[in-house]
Amino acid sequence: MQTTDYFTDEIKREYFELLKFETVGADPMKLRECVNCAMWIKKWLASMGFSGELMQAPGMLGTPPVLFAERKGAEGAPTVLFYGHYDVQPADPLEEWETPPFEPTLKNDGRVYCRGAQDDKGQWFAFLCGMRRFLATGTHAPTIKIVLEGQEESGSGALAALAPTIKEKLHADVMLVCDTGAAADLRPAIIAGLRGVSHFTVRLEAAAHDLHSGQFGGIAPNPAQGMAELLASLHNPDGSIAVKGFCDGIEPPTEEERAAAEAAALSEERYVEDMGCPPVGGEAGLTITERNSFRPTIEVNGIHTGYGGPGSKTVIPAGALAKLSMRLVPGQHPDRVMECVTRHLERHTPRGMKLFIEDLSGEAAGFRLPLASPVFRLAASVLEEMDSRGPVFQWDGASIPVVSALRVASGAAPLLVGWGQPQDRIHSPNESYGLDQFARAMEWGEKILAAL
Amino acid sequence: MQTTDYFTDEIKREYFELLKFETVGADPMKLRECVNCAMWIKKWLASMGFSGELMQAPGMLGTPPVLFAERKGAEGAPTVLFYGHYDVQPADPLEEWETPPFEPTLKNDGRVYCRGAQDDKGQWFAFLCGMRRFLATGTHAPTIKIVLEGQEESGSGALAALAPTIKEKLHADVMLVCDTGAAADLRPAIIAGLRGVSHFTVRLEAAAHDLHSGQFGGIAPNPAQGMAELLASLHNPDGSIAVKGFCDGIEPPTEEERAAAEAAALSEERYVEDMGCPPVGGEAGLTITERNSFRPTIEVNGIHTGYGGPGSKTVIPAGALAKLSMRLVPGQHPDRVMECVTRHLERHTPRGMKLFIEDLSGEAAGFRLPLASPVFRLAASVLEEMDSRGPVFQWDGASIPVVSALRVASGAAPLLVGWGQPQDRIHSPNESYGLDQFARAMEWGEKILAAL
Repeated sequence: MQTTDYFTDEIKREYFELLKFETVGADPMKLRECVNCAMWIKKWLASMGFSGELMQAPGMLGTPPVLFAERKGAEGAPTVLFYGHYDVQPADPLEEWETPPFEPTLKNDGRVYCRGAQDDKGQWFAFLCGMRRFLATGTHAPTIKIVLEGQEESGSGALAALAPTIKEKLHADVMLVCDTGAAADLRPAIIAGLRGVSHFTVRLEAAAHDLHSGQFGGIAPNPAQGMAELLASLHNPDGSIAVKGFCDGIEPPTEEERAAAEAAALSEERYVEDMGCPPVGGEAGLTITERNSFRPTIEVNGIHTGYGGPGSKTVIPAGALAKLSMRLVPGQHPDRVMECVTRHLERHTPRGMKLFIEDLSGEAAGFRLPLASPVFRLAASVLEEMDSRGPVFQWDGASIPVVSALRVASGAAPLLVGWGQPQDRIHSPNESYGLDQFARAMEWGEKILAAL
Repeated sequence: MQTTDYFTDEIKREYFELLKFETVGADPMKLRECVNCAMWIKKWLASMGFSGELMQAPGMLGTPPVLFAERKGAEGAPTVLFYGHYDVQPADPLEEWETPPFEPTLKNDGRVYCRGAQDDKGQWFAFLCGMRRFLATGTHAPTIKIVLEGQEESGSGALAALAPTIKEKLHADVMLVCDTGAAADLRPAIIAGLRGVSHFTVRLEAAAHDLHSGQFGGIAPNPAQGMAELLASLHNPDGSIAVKGFCDGIEPPTEEERAAAEAAALSEERYVEDMGCPPVGGEAGLTITERNSFRPTIEVNGIHTGYGGPGSKTVIPAGALAKLSMRLVPGQHPDRVMECVTRHLERHTPRGMKLFIEDLSGEAAGFRLPLASPVFRLAASVLEEMDSRGPVFQWDGASIPVVSALRVASGAAPLLVGWGQPQDRIHSPNESYGLDQFARAMEWGEKILAAL
């Protein structure tokens, strides 16, 4: 199949329109962009016979709306719930973008560069373009429910709160998600598990104002130094997590899961290529797959304290801020894990400083799905039709917290198949999505809906 | 003596004009402000019969100029070299200023608020206003040489390079500096020693770009976590410095020095009041005075890496930056100490990351002066005349790196007497200088020049 058969001028125009909305859901200043984007999608889906509505979680006005759309299918046909998110990561650091982050650019390398080109606008848009092709054939269609939210990158607060209150709306047999990656060389991958996640902010405060590092050096507690010590205390020298109780109760993978995961693993060389550095993060002595798929992490996502400009500034900062996130695996309950981390941070707070733990958000447990389920078998046959190599099963190190909530509310069996590749650089400057990936996502959408 | 007798409308107008120049010497964007300020001062000194010139260090064009001014004294009179700096610290964090940082504001508390109100524009300007009063009396005056530079807050690069090349110009019997603090309740203080200093920047790099903390968490090395571990390694749990060889050769103070320093020490309560937190920084088990006057420090002045904005961003940063400075005491040679730190940082660089040590600047050794010198005796008698309590001797924890260089080049005996107080908040938002302090600095300038 030729890419151009799929990526028509019309689709390109629609795709670029969608990408231009600066839907940074975490940034209150971008709320208007999010609302406009959701309305744009609602209109776009209406052209395919979908009834749609923008929903707010009770008491959560001023957050990006959740778009719910539905198209009744043939009598007795199954119900499919499709989930995606129209929000994107912040674009910073801006200076590292080769083209403006919200100006979609198709380069000669056959890739579209833009924040959200892949995660997740590109992936779900391509899938739904495939759905449009399928619906155009007029054949016996399932009932299709679509949920697109605007807070996935910042914890899915609104949808997580809404889901339990609209179980009937969400009820479905299968939940399709196109927000994950394929294996090496675009070999299809079925996600058999996801890690959970939890975000929080840590602040340290000491003096009431910045102090002169000569006048007060050796006298005043230094929160920049203190934050370094506090964060360093989270890990052991071998890279394992030093927080007491953090790893209690972790369910190890079965031999079948472990074997399937290793079979789908990228080579170390491939990671060096994709990351530009050796894959030596995490716990020493475990394989890359084990560390990423079956082990939890505590990552420091950012530290900001004191002076960072040109020259030097001999200051002892009054405070320090760090952004952290944890990836959790089955057997770890987010609340209990956070209690362990809180206790650890309190116990390790350097003398003379006050500790604040804030902005706890996006808490979700990790999960693993049974490999032998009927949905997985059906998906496998479709994917084998698309690619003779057939699918691999993966346990993605990333998280889609809301999938857990939707799973419970809808009663549907999750089927996560996406077409991301490491070179897409999601969450980084110069995010992009290849037209070959776009075409695969379309074909998948078209064929899986036909098969269901 | 009434403050108003000294702080006339004319002086207020001149003082505010001087403060309005945004002379952030470390910021290349402010070079024009620095040049304009230096020209303003040259003109101001010319009105008192000083010949002046703006000097550039060879090969250092594009840096704030050094102002050298001279006024010949009576035949056979001694030569006095006065040093100060017209540059100031960066004003950030801007949002914490109650009045604009470069808009001098005299508040009802009798203090002038502005960046540089004290450090050092306010102190040397007040001293030189006192000099003007003395010169107006027309009595037998010493030859007065004035050096005012624009890089003290960022390492004094130009003047340090110039000094050895203009020894004749700088040659003097006594070097007066008004850039230090008085004791509690404005009791006069003679600085009998200063700590040395050295600044540098540390960077860690891992991936070629920011990475998704789920997709790569447990695989990619995290420079934010790595920087925390690297900086934490610089100190032991008791707050002492863990860098091998760092403290070798330190000359302990004499009993006389130690006794004099402790006699002049502020109370712990006073520090709590001034800093807004307990004075528990530095090495456990040593007195505040010992830690600040006679022990070295390594301070983290800033850390910047990854995300710090609203909400969360699940990213593994590609790199991390930290600004550090060290305070050194007699017996520590800056170069040798830096070698120890470099070796330590190299040995502790986390796996998978590249270390960069950059922007090494402002290196100066600490020094202590003999308490029984003639200059100190003369100064003591003048200060006793000004304040019946008489002066205390202090070993300031801060540094004026260029004083060491000027001391060598001029052959002069340094006499450091200043009128700073902790509540001046130098280097912090809402820096200020009290009119009572201003008046003392003026009186000191007038009387010491008359006595010399």
